[in-house]
Amino acid sequence: MPVMPQRLQAPLPVAGFRVGSASCGVKSADLKGKRQDLTLILADVPTQAAGVFTQNSFRAACVDLAEKRLAEQAKDIRLIVANAGNANAGVGEMERVWAQQLIDLSAEAVDVRSDQVLSASTGVIGEPFPIKRIADTMFEAVDSLAEDNWIQAAEAIRTTDTFAKCASRQFEVQGKTYTIPGVSKGSGMIHPNMATMLGFIATDAPLAADTLQVMLSKVADRSFNSISVDGDTSTNDTVYLLSSGLGLGLAVLEDTSSFEQALEEVAIELAQLIVRDGEGVTKFVSIQVTGATSEAQARQLGRTIAVSPLVKTAFAGSDANWGRILMAIGNSGLDIVPEKVSLKADDVFIVEHGNLHPDYQDDLGMQVFAQDEFCLHVDLALGESQATVWTGDLTHDYITINAEYRT
Amino acid sequence: MPVMPQRLQAPLPVAGFRVGSASCGVKSADLKGKRQDLTLILADVPTQAAGVFTQNSFRAACVDLAEKRLAEQAKDIRLIVANAGNANAGVGEMERVWAQQLIDLSAEAVDVRSDQVLSASTGVIGEPFPIKRIADTMFEAVDSLAEDNWIQAAEAIRTTDTFAKCASRQFEVQGKTYTIPGVSKGSGMIHPNMATMLGFIATDAPLAADTLQVMLSKVADRSFNSISVDGDTSTNDTVYLLSSGLGLGLAVLEDTSSFEQALEEVAIELAQLIVRDGEGVTKFVSIQVTGATSEAQARQLGRTIAVSPLVKTAFAGSDANWGRILMAIGNSGLDIVPEKVSLKADDVFIVEHGNLHPDYQDDLGMQVFAQDEFCLHVDLALGESQATVWTGDLTHDYITINAEYRT
Repeated sequence: MPVMPQRLQAPLPVAGFRVGSASCGVKSADLKGKRQDLTLILADVPTQAAGVFTQNSFRAACVDLAEKRLAEQAKDIRLIVANAGNANAGVGEMERVWAQQLIDLSAEAVDVRSDQVLSASTGVIGEPFPIKRIADTMFEAVDSLAEDNWIQAAEAIRTTDTFAKCASRQFEVQGKTYTIPGVSKGSGMIHPNMATMLGFIATDAPLAADTLQVMLSKVADRSFNSISVDGDTSTNDTVYLLSSGLGLGLAVLEDTSSFEQALEEVAIELAQLIVRDGEGVTKFVSIQVTGATSEAQARQLGRTIAVSPLVKTAFAGSDANWGRILMAIGNSGLDIVPEKVSLKADDVFIVEHGNLHPDYQDDLGMQVFAQDEFCLHVDLALGESQATVWTGDLTHDYITINAEYRT
Repeated sequence: MPVMPQRLQAPLPVAGFRVGSASCGVKSADLKGKRQDLTLILADVPTQAAGVFTQNSFRAACVDLAEKRLAEQAKDIRLIVANAGNANAGVGEMERVWAQQLIDLSAEAVDVRSDQVLSASTGVIGEPFPIKRIADTMFEAVDSLAEDNWIQAAEAIRTTDTFAKCASRQFEVQGKTYTIPGVSKGSGMIHPNMATMLGFIATDAPLAADTLQVMLSKVADRSFNSISVDGDTSTNDTVYLLSSGLGLGLAVLEDTSSFEQALEEVAIELAQLIVRDGEGVTKFVSIQVTGATSEAQARQLGRTIAVSPLVKTAFAGSDANWGRILMAIGNSGLDIVPEKVSLKADDVFIVEHGNLHPDYQDDLGMQVFAQDEFCLHVDLALGESQATVWTGDLTHDYITINAEYRT
């Protein structure tokens, strides 16, 4: 039972982009026509582009190709092509060939150059990549290209996701309204068979590629890199950000603060949806760390708590087991001062400056932990920096999904 | 179902030490007389002592006191006193008072000085420490003191352990035989309610405290610090090593190599028993990392694999999911070269220099993973160093134990 958001609306369309999808039967031929698994995000003008990628030492060929492409040509990208059902990873020497073929045949299908294409693949690893089935069905994705079609992209990049993930924001600068739609996929905090976290975000805000890259990297830390077990990044994790604004002839946006805020909101919403759909997740927990000496310290402490199996099973049991949370804090390896640490669950004070708060009673904590969603606040009283990390619980369903996935 | 060792023998007695235990009802008064929960390890002569302690920033008072004691007086220790059932941790200002009282009253009971005592407490946290019940029953532990009583110590330090853990070795130097008995406890890879990992090892090998400390620290890295989730160390984790040899008037052992090897064997056996009794564990997996640039690198890589929930659930499902293992390797953050990495499961080659081995077939891997015990070999082909880490699987029983522990 995922912790579904209250409402999920189709993303707003944005000038300069059309989206299409098709059902190729990527995972197996008999799924052809049954579920969408190929996505095209086509820009009608050259876009400025940015990307962030998995830090895993083992990376799929599509990630290597995309990183190289962005290093060489981030100011002239026309297409994102993505498939679900096969990660094209761990298959040896053919991996790079197939990755390039996916790029080439999609470029040809929408009449752009191969060097204007970024690709992404997600799904099972170690299986031959069905490039022929994709080639045979590419025209269907091209035929379906339309501006108001982002929800199809959200659907078609799913693998084990139980719902499509999308978000969008608009913001105004000097009387002009800009739009940021985005889609994401990911089976949550941890990835079965290395299933991938993907995010595709577009905008018409007129910004150059280098500015987009700086902002995406910063925002990714506060969103996609702030969910649960990002230590378990897969071989294929990728987030792309494309802007059509300059290609549409708009003047460069000088004041970028509104854009950055809206981008962060979109990215956080897309990232949170991944946690909410996490495997076996029944709780959505925000871990807010304040009083840190740096944002990085705050985030690392939050992550340490978020990945602790003991903390996550306590969440699952609706057990306000504050001892386990202190233990996780103590295990962060960071230079904290136990006597300064305070802990609250929602508004309930549990630990104050390292000691159990005099007013705390177990049933107060239990009421908070019994909820589907709640927030832990950890204050380190060391500095002024803060960060928030989002995670889920660790349940029997997680074990069932991951221990019995291939059997 | 723990992965029991084939045989478990009572530890050998060693000259200079007597062991006693009692049933105080530490956890609750109605357990008095029902299970042993107080342990005394008394040296009849002053011993040279060493200790290694939890690296958790939140530490129990008994750990602070012991570390201070060893810093001041490692050459004149007479007694280890340990209780199970209450960790005397997370209880605020009384914690230190109670910890000192436990030391004082046990010292008085066996007629040694308080500054000759090391203590350890394990059990529930955040509960008042029942110092009176312990005081009232101390005489029973004193009455039971005997040389051939180590198995009682192994029994009496248990909390959620399903079996008592002990090991011993003898070694010979220049015609004289020395003995190393040891006991340990721990609920395995991860600790419910911060339950503690404890290890007490004694010897008559005549070595000075500073030598013992160097060896214990080194050996602890290869044993207690090489089991599964040592990231989740508790507030109370402690290993003590005491030597009676010099106190018995023996000349200092010049050649320490035999001692070190025997000590390492005892420590590894005690550590492995903790994994075998891990919560919900049904598999005992050795992860041997070779070709590393340093032993520390090899160990860290092994740990990264050993703590990955995806890897551990694959173990649970008897699923030779090598993709997850590569993912964990890639996520280690270490400077590895994917194209050089090789992976074997027992004798089955899976990955050779970053690519799937041509002879590998899924059913070969499945046969290995179906066993109760097997070994993963990871070769980094970067250097000459190696390390082995031991871990278990992540099962439904783990979730049940930890999510439903207090409910």
